[in-house]
Amino acid sequence: MTTAPAAVVLLSGGLDSTTCLAIARAEGYRCYALSFDYGQRHRLELECARRVAEAFGAERHLVSRIDLGAFGGSALTSDLAVPKSGSADEVDRHEGVPVTYVPARNTVFLSFALAWCEVLQADHIFIGVNALDYSGYPDCRPEYIAAWETLATLATRAGTEEGRKLRIHAPLMDWDKSRIIARGVELGVDYGLTTTCYDPDGQGHACGHCDACLLRLRGFARLGLADPAVYQPGSRG
Amino acid sequence: MTTAPAAVVLLSGGLDSTTCLAIARAEGYRCYALSFDYGQRHRLELECARRVAEAFGAERHLVSRIDLGAFGGSALTSDLAVPKSGSADEVDRHEGVPVTYVPARNTVFLSFALAWCEVLQADHIFIGVNALDYSGYPDCRPEYIAAWETLATLATRAGTEEGRKLRIHAPLMDWDKSRIIARGVELGVDYGLTTTCYDPDGQGHACGHCDACLLRLRGFARLGLADPAVYQPGSRG
Repeated sequence: MTTAPAAVVLLSGGLDSTTCLAIARAEGYRCYALSFDYGQRHRLELECARRVAEAFGAERHLVSRIDLGAFGGSALTSDLAVPKSGSADEVDRHEGVPVTYVPARNTVFLSFALAWCEVLQADHIFIGVNALDYSGYPDCRPEYIAAWETLATLATRAGTEEGRKLRIHAPLMDWDKSRIIARGVELGVDYGLTTTCYDPDGQGHACGHCDACLLRLRGFARLGLADPAVYQPGSRG
Repeated sequence: MTTAPAAVVLLSGGLDSTTCLAIARAEGYRCYALSFDYGQRHRLELECARRVAEAFGAERHLVSRIDLGAFGGSALTSDLAVPKSGSADEVDRHEGVPVTYVPARNTVFLSFALAWCEVLQADHIFIGVNALDYSGYPDCRPEYIAAWETLATLATRAGTEEGRKLRIHAPLMDWDKSRIIARGVELGVDYGLTTTCYDPDGQGHACGHCDACLLRLRGFARLGLADPAVYQPGSRG
């Protein structure tokens, strides 16, 4: 009997990373879910990540504390206002790197995933990055992921063993939000467990107006599905 | 008047990273020193880093807390015994990755340096890695640093701006310990401020027997210099 291969899956508790975990499980990996407590303003994400990891039978769920906030520079970890747009189409037209970009976030996250891979002797990392939505994030591009695979293989014990190679799986890379949701629904994801909003209220209800909410809502709408997430009264959700 | 370029310098408080900071300063960079509290068993390193950053006029010294220890797997962050060797020549003959290797450590450290670079709008990182001593560490090789430069440029805002490029400086890469020390002495480094030992006692005195002590002591001996670090009574230092 062969053992299923192990994979570290980056899990924020949002729609994309949850779908990514579902895909990794469907592909037969034993999944080690990794979340970060990085001073994000709302802690709801971590609670969602915990529930999602449990729902998908992750072997283990680890929350690693890091203080990216010490560097400053992002609306998600500091007091800068989260920008609101009128519609998802308006979000599409944004240019440049949004202020919600956390400096080098995916690089930091992947480096921790790599550390865990080494300890687990795992050769696979799953990350739910997406080049279509949020095209302004430099660390969500295919060439970035390719560079990471090269680096990861060189960086670790695996790279010193003949024929071994670290693989970074980014299955959502080219998918639009609707396709991500459709695949997740197929795999039995309950999106009511996930959170996407950059600016939820005290009860964890989504704002319905930040870029992340707008893109998510449009994704569900295009499939003719209702988003099971709870939105604030009076918001468009 | 042109402003001196800014650089993030990884600073452990050890001999190599201290020399690296001295070199960055001598090359005219404004230096932002970055240390990590990553559950290392002895905290002396951070105190040394603080003194070194002050001695070399770093613009700022930041200590970032990360919990690599949560992943397990290294003698430096867990309860595994630190190995002792008979001599530096014996250390040279070791093969494979030593148990003092912290999983993906340099990758994690560089990712944080990159995050700070982004906030500072800095295009330079200095790291005191060395491919000669500790050849068993996969993340101390020239090809690893080259892969990092590619990644860092792709990962960040800098990579989206025409003609900008992140540079990872590893000036000690090919130097043996004696050459590192000789260059540091030229630049006025007081090596009495630094710590190298994997296993110091409660007073911070070096053991004189771990691989790091042996390589350091041989480096000074070959130059006919006394190591100003304090060693435990009865140790060879």
